[in-house]
Amino acid sequence: MQRCLELARKGTGFVSPNPLVGCVIVKNGKVIAEGWHKEYGGPHAERNAINSAVRKGYTLTGSELYVNLEPCAHFGNTPPCAELIVKHRFKRVVIGMKDPYHKVAGKGIKLIKKAGIEVKVNVLKAECLEVNKFFIKYVTTGLPYVMLKAAQTLDGKIADSAFRSKWISSPESRKLVHEFRASYDAVLVGKNTVKYDDPSLNVRDVKGRDPLRIVMDPMLTLDINRKIFKAGMANQTIVLCSPAAPKSKMAKLRKLGAGVLEVPLKAKVIDADFALRKLSTLGITSVMIEGGAFTYEKFIKKGLVDEYMIFVAPKLMGGGIDAFGKSFNPFEQSRVSYYQSGPDLLINIRR
Amino acid sequence: MQRCLELARKGTGFVSPNPLVGCVIVKNGKVIAEGWHKEYGGPHAERNAINSAVRKGYTLTGSELYVNLEPCAHFGNTPPCAELIVKHRFKRVVIGMKDPYHKVAGKGIKLIKKAGIEVKVNVLKAECLEVNKFFIKYVTTGLPYVMLKAAQTLDGKIADSAFRSKWISSPESRKLVHEFRASYDAVLVGKNTVKYDDPSLNVRDVKGRDPLRIVMDPMLTLDINRKIFKAGMANQTIVLCSPAAPKSKMAKLRKLGAGVLEVPLKAKVIDADFALRKLSTLGITSVMIEGGAFTYEKFIKKGLVDEYMIFVAPKLMGGGIDAFGKSFNPFEQSRVSYYQSGPDLLINIRR
Repeated sequence: MQRCLELARKGTGFVSPNPLVGCVIVKNGKVIAEGWHKEYGGPHAERNAINSAVRKGYTLTGSELYVNLEPCAHFGNTPPCAELIVKHRFKRVVIGMKDPYHKVAGKGIKLIKKAGIEVKVNVLKAECLEVNKFFIKYVTTGLPYVMLKAAQTLDGKIADSAFRSKWISSPESRKLVHEFRASYDAVLVGKNTVKYDDPSLNVRDVKGRDPLRIVMDPMLTLDINRKIFKAGMANQTIVLCSPAAPKSKMAKLRKLGAGVLEVPLKAKVIDADFALRKLSTLGITSVMIEGGAFTYEKFIKKGLVDEYMIFVAPKLMGGGIDAFGKSFNPFEQSRVSYYQSGPDLLINIRR
Repeated sequence: MQRCLELARKGTGFVSPNPLVGCVIVKNGKVIAEGWHKEYGGPHAERNAINSAVRKGYTLTGSELYVNLEPCAHFGNTPPCAELIVKHRFKRVVIGMKDPYHKVAGKGIKLIKKAGIEVKVNVLKAECLEVNKFFIKYVTTGLPYVMLKAAQTLDGKIADSAFRSKWISSPESRKLVHEFRASYDAVLVGKNTVKYDDPSLNVRDVKGRDPLRIVMDPMLTLDINRKIFKAGMANQTIVLCSPAAPKSKMAKLRKLGAGVLEVPLKAKVIDADFALRKLSTLGITSVMIEGGAFTYEKFIKKGLVDEYMIFVAPKLMGGGIDAFGKSFNPFEQSRVSYYQSGPDLLINIRR
């Protein structure tokens, strides 16, 4: 199962909104084939592993199949894996966790059991839940998994009073942020972050694909010369704005290749709940909120954050922009863990 | 030498302004006696170890002596240890580090070598420097070692806007603070901390002696009903005030048993440099600054802090009193390390 999870993680960044799945086939106590779900729309892990075994000339009757998530029982982009398993007359199927997705939810297990195959479920379940935390949140709530990333000084500042925020955190911490970007479907920022920092919001320091870039700009006041609207960048940028924003600016952004989504305002700001629901309809299962302070506060106050990754640099700014504004104790009942990241500290807070 | 350091630490809190010293005597490859400096004014570690060996009936000719600090060569409260070592005709003396105190500073080593005894110096030197960091700062600069302890939330607050600061940190962290108190000669606070928190500033959660309590109250406006002025407490409390403070209040405090020290003001606040020099004349080799924000800022800005122990609770206050005010980057070129303390994080910063 540990190996299934390793294989599953190879699909990171490419399978969404599908889950990360790895599969191992064992015959006479020996691993004879492996497979994982490589990209959305492609064959599932079980099919890849079975195909690999068959290509090597194995018959699978009497062998065992390990997989971190319940095999599917429905026709999606591909035919059901449970039927394939039954067809190959496996002796035993070991499953990390039941699939919470309503179209599967036990139906895969039932189908396999009915064929007289032994099934064991809940093996390394905690690790299986962790590997698919995006998928699980998405299929059980209809909302993306939301992680808030911040880089602050010890005195809680994310920028000086002139909004300069670059290089608060160390190269080691910035590299970790790029790893996060490569694994989240989308990163989300407020308009001030784009205005003052002009970030690229892409993946540079590590291997991996760029995330979608979401910027909240209610009245579309941002300059189109910002990096995220440039050629080669704009087509992965989505702007959330008010229906009352100038239609001409909407058209201009769309012409550059950016997506423009109209979401209602609430007290003059974009309704964060509504924005997340809208993004989930696009198949976005995970969002990393990268700032700034105003955007953090909105998501925190509405209780929309599932996980925090807060980098703390051992520096004092002595004034400037507070990371979390007036947010009061959103971490009650949370699990907190600490990691060192170069000279910085990384505080991870989970619901 | 490791054992010498263990023994040395047993004197923690009781030997100041003397150093912490442990001594081990080895004969024919076997430890035959140990000793440590137990309290100020009492015999040194070497004398205690030698006396212990002699009491057990050993002659020490040809044996080896291990000690973490150079044996003294001068008459202080006790006769010189170097002479005692020579008298007992040791074969070899292993010394952790040279004594930086000007009355010793190599003279002990010279005296022992002159008697034909083999001497090895600088064994586990880094650990020896660490164990006596208070003593070394004191004898080399004439100033006490200054550690700043703070307990803040993740957003950098030490109290809410009504100055309520209790229980920001966890029981585990508070216990550590009591350990610090038991090892520092004195704790120092500003008048607002006494006014709003009314702390006892004593050692409760661990074994150990109470530190001296120093409070800075320029015009002596503090209510004498505060805990630190109560019977059984006042005689370990020193108030630093302006020479212009009311003489009647000075007399009142002295009658309660408290010490009152007049120090000049600079820009209406107590001159932190001058205060530390004054405290050092009382034989205070180490001071822990416990707050509040105003006091922290004064010491930080003047570059008087040798070490920081900053507890960070994984909470957001959303407003309140900033721990470090306008202090800007005092940690440049410092060594930073992180420790977990219950649910809190402890950030240690050393010059």
